[in-house]
Amino acid sequence: MALDDSPPLYLQIATQMAELIRNGSLGRGSRMPSVRELARQRGVAQSTVVQAYHWLEDARLITARPRSGYFVAARPVALPEPSVSRGLRRPRDVSVDWLGQRILGTPHPADVISFSSGTPGPDLLDVDRVRRAVTRSAQRHRQLLCTYPSSNGHEDARRAIARYAVGLGCSLNPERILITGGCMDSISLCLRAVTQPGDVVALESPTHFSFLEVLQGLHLKALEIPTHPRYGISLDALQLALETQPVKALLVVPTLSNPLGACMPQGERRRLAQLAAQHGLAVIEDAIYSDLAEQDEHRRSVKSYDATGHVMLCDSFSKTLAPGLRLGWVEAGRWTEPLRRIKDMQAGGQSPVLELALADLIGQTGHAAAMRQLRTAIAARMDEVRRVIASAFPPGTRVSDPPGGLLFWLELPRAVDTVQLHQAFLDERILVPPGTVFGTGGRFRNCLRIGVGGDWTADHVRALRRVGELACAMAAVPRKAA
Amino acid sequence: MALDDSPPLYLQIATQMAELIRNGSLGRGSRMPSVRELARQRGVAQSTVVQAYHWLEDARLITARPRSGYFVAARPVALPEPSVSRGLRRPRDVSVDWLGQRILGTPHPADVISFSSGTPGPDLLDVDRVRRAVTRSAQRHRQLLCTYPSSNGHEDARRAIARYAVGLGCSLNPERILITGGCMDSISLCLRAVTQPGDVVALESPTHFSFLEVLQGLHLKALEIPTHPRYGISLDALQLALETQPVKALLVVPTLSNPLGACMPQGERRRLAQLAAQHGLAVIEDAIYSDLAEQDEHRRSVKSYDATGHVMLCDSFSKTLAPGLRLGWVEAGRWTEPLRRIKDMQAGGQSPVLELALADLIGQTGHAAAMRQLRTAIAARMDEVRRVIASAFPPGTRVSDPPGGLLFWLELPRAVDTVQLHQAFLDERILVPPGTVFGTGGRFRNCLRIGVGGDWTADHVRALRRVGELACAMAAVPRKAA
Repeated sequence: MALDDSPPLYLQIATQMAELIRNGSLGRGSRMPSVRELARQRGVAQSTVVQAYHWLEDARLITARPRSGYFVAARPVALPEPSVSRGLRRPRDVSVDWLGQRILGTPHPADVISFSSGTPGPDLLDVDRVRRAVTRSAQRHRQLLCTYPSSNGHEDARRAIARYAVGLGCSLNPERILITGGCMDSISLCLRAVTQPGDVVALESPTHFSFLEVLQGLHLKALEIPTHPRYGISLDALQLALETQPVKALLVVPTLSNPLGACMPQGERRRLAQLAAQHGLAVIEDAIYSDLAEQDEHRRSVKSYDATGHVMLCDSFSKTLAPGLRLGWVEAGRWTEPLRRIKDMQAGGQSPVLELALADLIGQTGHAAAMRQLRTAIAARMDEVRRVIASAFPPGTRVSDPPGGLLFWLELPRAVDTVQLHQAFLDERILVPPGTVFGTGGRFRNCLRIGVGGDWTADHVRALRRVGELACAMAAVPRKAA
Repeated sequence: MALDDSPPLYLQIATQMAELIRNGSLGRGSRMPSVRELARQRGVAQSTVVQAYHWLEDARLITARPRSGYFVAARPVALPEPSVSRGLRRPRDVSVDWLGQRILGTPHPADVISFSSGTPGPDLLDVDRVRRAVTRSAQRHRQLLCTYPSSNGHEDARRAIARYAVGLGCSLNPERILITGGCMDSISLCLRAVTQPGDVVALESPTHFSFLEVLQGLHLKALEIPTHPRYGISLDALQLALETQPVKALLVVPTLSNPLGACMPQGERRRLAQLAAQHGLAVIEDAIYSDLAEQDEHRRSVKSYDATGHVMLCDSFSKTLAPGLRLGWVEAGRWTEPLRRIKDMQAGGQSPVLELALADLIGQTGHAAAMRQLRTAIAARMDEVRRVIASAFPPGTRVSDPPGGLLFWLELPRAVDTVQLHQAFLDERILVPPGTVFGTGGRFRNCLRIGVGGDWTADHVRALRRVGELACAMAAVPRKAA
């Protein structure tokens, strides 16, 4: 990599400090060197250290205490984090894993205990609040049940979404927001607006299974970029890719990526927006998990730094409110008109009565409180799962520590073949997707994604312990040569 | 055309008799020659004449009176029918008319009196019946508001659609029905399942504006096939095209085609299913207007004759029940699995609460009566429009006489340029789409489509007379050479 490609100074310092925290040299709860002290030690400006510390704060590794300085965050991490993924040097045709389709693409029998869902189910969501909003909307807007809607979405709903997007740091023009049939519909429309079959799309590694599916469907090539389990996609690697490969678009989840649960620091988001502008790259930003992030500072979107219209912001409320409404939205920046045309000729709009029910819901004064309540309920469940993983899984297991959401990414000892293990789980009516379905070419074969968004009972806790036992048994037997 | 391409004997006889009826040689209400008599005269089997008479019955030109024989239908036709369209010999790239996009693709201001809609609006539909079904479904199935749905559609809704399809002459397996975001969504999915960019798709001429839009969006070429204003697409011309051109799919509306309002006779539907099987042609059948057909015999679909899975049946209830639900369905025959995959990766399902509201509505005992009531209301409005057209439009005007639906197709004297006229209408706040938007290459420039599905007031009747006056004024001035 040329000298120009080395990370900025503040990021070098931040990464070094993060490593010291991770390996215990800087103990949890201990005081960090003062800004002045560290600046002197490193021979850099104090503002550079401040920038590094802000980055570490964003990453939840340190906290600022007013008038006392910075401290290493006190939250214990039970197990080490997964390693930074390697990515792939060349774009590949996508052929999604058949296991992925079977596990994530089809409903499972009722007697199977599933850890495949990263979406809160009816037991975590406020079903009655949604039902009341739908009934009220059908009553108030009944004429709209019998009228062809605008394919852009009802203007009152677009206005409500523009108000909501202020929380993502964006000031959007409702006229440029399009309501869609869900976040994946938004993403598929974006890809169709900016690519042709055969084009290269960069994405995180590991990545969301549905992203690989949509890339395959549109005959696009995937370029998997190294991704940090906590800080997300490596912009250095992305930049190198942009300089050496014909990358048309980046598909990225800056907040709580799937499956890693990584959150890009704000400085990185700004840098990504700049990179996109410099390289004419279309950034398709999936913000669907934003409301599940524990800290407000993770919610500000890449789009909020976008001055040139290169960022296409895709979102929905399916992870926080009501997946059964099947509504999402997109602000497609400079590609708004092509996207509108593709959408027009595809189907031409969603049910305005549901759109207005959604507008009602996200506009209610109680909505922010409902989101906090949801995050608290999820956090309790995640803590329970953390304890099980820490106690029941093989020594050497690494696990992500996502600041929100319903997913854990586990990297098991090399001896563990999760594809084989998946079958052993199934024999006991337990479903856990193996790591291979989150990339191309059979990588991540010692990884698992644990999603705890579905039903949650004592049986699930027992089943998860059993998953750990089976993994331990396999880890104890040395893996055969391939 | 080779000898083999000449129409079957019964159709030759039927066409000749139709001509005799149309030119008055066989007067309205008079007795037709008996089957035995005509068979002897023509030297053909009686069964051939019976077939010809059934075809003429389907076409509403004659009626059978038990024990008395066949009679020319008594219904007066005010004006002659439009001529059979010529079609185009070669496939063409589609570039939709900008006027079409402005007139049919965008909402018009409230003070404009519009004749652009072929869909019954809230004044013709039973808004409260729909509203009650939605409220009931949200109440009963509230859990589904907060669950990711199956992308195929809720199975109870698919079963209800299979029962409904019996009325289209089909016995469909609910497992193979996919619920979509509307009939155009179904059609777009079908096209994506059976074509690649650059492929040729045959369709009626003139055709539905949205069909041209979707073809353009998918980079498909249009091959416009001659179409009879009463009997629909010419299968002889289609057959010739199949033998000489690489036609991948046919997009056809056998019942109440848009804009002509033609209904294919049942014998022709059977022949089309056979042609598709012989040539490996994908027939995309749009049945959306079936419930608006005045006679039951027009409702039997091409799909009902399909033994080989070459017919993909697309439908929705947006023209008869509730366009604002945004639901449609498709049974894609042998292309069911590819279509399912495309749909999966596009958006992944509609709102199951709305799907089940729809299932409730179409399963209600009163639904058939509601459809009859709707057709009666529409017929009254259409009769009013027929009278205005007969009295206010220029001599030499030809007009379609559709057996149902809300559209008239007018062929004005050659001197009338409807693109120019459209601007004159607009100056008086009247909107009527010119014929050019229903084909490629600026054809049908002396044609108009009058749709009476929107609001309907005394102002509309006055505006329609004014449309006639302006057309008369232009007809009186000889058209300039181009």
